[in-house]
Amino acid sequence: MLNADELRRIFDAAPFIRDLGLQLVEYGEGRCETRLALAERHLQQDGLVHAGVQATIADHTAGSAAATLIGIDQMVLTVEFKINFLRGAQGHSLHCKAAVLKPGSRLSVVESEVYCEKPGPVKLVSKALVSLAIVDKRTRS
Amino acid sequence: MLNADELRRIFDAAPFIRDLGLQLVEYGEGRCETRLALAERHLQQDGLVHAGVQATIADHTAGSAAATLIGIDQMVLTVEFKINFLRGAQGHSLHCKAAVLKPGSRLSVVESEVYCEKPGPVKLVSKALVSLAIVDKRTRS
Amino acid sequence: MLNADELRRIFDAAPFIRDLGLQLVEYGEGRCETRLALAERHLQQDGLVHAGVQATIADHTAGSAAATLIGIDQMVLTVEFKINFLRGAQGHSLHCKAAVLKPGSRLSVVESEVYCEKPGPVKLVSKALVSLAIVDKRTRS
Amino acid sequence: MLNADELRRIFDAAPFIRDLGLQLVEYGEGRCETRLALAERHLQQDGLVHAGVQATIADHTAGSAAATLIGIDQMVLTVEFKINFLRGAQGHSLHCKAAVLKPGSRLSVVESEVYCEKPGPVKLVSKALVSLAIVDKRTRS
Repeated sequence: MLNADELRRIFDAAPFIRDLGLQLVEYGEGRCETRLALAERHLQQDGLVHAGVQATIADHTAGSAAATLIGIDQMVLTVEFKINFLRGAQGHSLHCKAAVLKPGSRLSVVESEVYCEKPGPVKLVSKALVSLAIVDKRTRS
Repeated sequence: MLNADELRRIFDAAPFIRDLGLQLVEYGEGRCETRLALAERHLQQDGLVHAGVQATIADHTAGSAAATLIGIDQMVLTVEFKINFLRGAQGHSLHCKAAVLKPGSRLSVVESEVYCEKPGPVKLVSKALVSLAIVDKRTRS
Repeated sequence: MLNADELRRIFDAAPFIRDLGLQLVEYGEGRCETRLALAERHLQQDGLVHAGVQATIADHTAGSAAATLIGIDQMVLTVEFKINFLRGAQGHSLHCKAAVLKPGSRLSVVESEVYCEKPGPVKLVSKALVSLAIVDKRTRS
Repeated sequence: MLNADELRRIFDAAPFIRDLGLQLVEYGEGRCETRLALAERHLQQDGLVHAGVQATIADHTAGSAAATLIGIDQMVLTVEFKINFLRGAQGHSLHCKAAVLKPGSRLSVVESEVYCEKPGPVKLVSKALVSLAIVDKRTRS
């Protein structure tokens, strides 16, 4: 059963995500899509989108995809992730699609793809593998 | 020879880093230290520092460490990184130390450690391995 | 144009791969498939396939996929990889499929999926993201 | 308290490790060292030690370091790892040192360094970050 409450909380209650401007676009069981309208403040020193922005989106969208599958008293915590940057990202928005590769009772593994949208064809700019712990909201330490 | 110009440019000319508030603390050949004074906007939904903030700092400080060793017509681009989150980060500031594990003419590998400072002992909260391409400023595509 | 010579050399001339028993199954431009018939010597202490066996297959098949796209005087060298183990692997053979996510003149990024075959449905047991350097055969150092 | 029994079992009962020839050299609480005498069968197509051999050693030594800290009814399972290959490995033996970065009741994070020994100075050839699940021997599924 889809846990939409936790997913919405992740977006509404995370200051860094609101500050960045990341929008929840769509979700389903074990998957989530987000979009970020790019502004100058998302860039690095050479005019491309900063790796940290892409990593943040890949991580947060992965956590959201995992959160759709957890119980109502549970939450997700990122354990680790790895991200490859495939090409320079330059455009008007980033679109991230995350899908759970393996749901678990203690650990879920999710992959995220970040696409850059601009005039011209949409391109895959980064890909991440994310491991998330599933923890009880009460007993988290 | 230490390329301090490129290192300073990475901090002065990167909008996302200025927006985040990351400060250059210290650097030397193949190493760099930065600090971020934590504010509410750096947090995720449960009051801890967002994984994306830690990833951004780990990546940018690694790039800065690698940049100290490159030529004046070169720049660094993050190829990929992996980061493990070891404990929840909660405190007044993050301190990141990056050191080049293996400098190269085409690729450098750097490790970054992120420490959380608060009343009480400083703790290692995340650790990253970062691969960076060394590219000519003119021929980057 | 598909560089089948380099791909075959990778299989015929690599002692560790011959010793392991990995077979080349199929290949095309930017992709490769391999299979390993499992024996007792591939296992870890609890009867499951050792993580190192899965990692070796994921890496070597990724390198083979990247090698199909390089020039005749070039070779591939693994820069780094990350692999997630999704479930315990137990069965009669492993089947690996690798596909190039982003080919490059200096660096290619490949993803590999390892499936475990046994009586019953085939399952994805591990997934890897692999970065490979493309180097000239003469100038490698 | 150091769980030496589980650590010895990991070496004595793992067919792939015996077959590879990996030797347990030394251990303590949260750390382990191993050594592999290199032979022709450990090489890839260009005479260097295969990435899969280095990955296997880094993973297994990390698991051993984590196992020194677990309970007598527990075992470790590799969740994921990432490894960077820093230079071509060529020599008479590989020496691996693993140390627990963060022990946990459910997950431990370990780093492994692989050194290549040959006539001349010992060199760091690869570095890995490894995440391991701590599971009860009875309830593993």
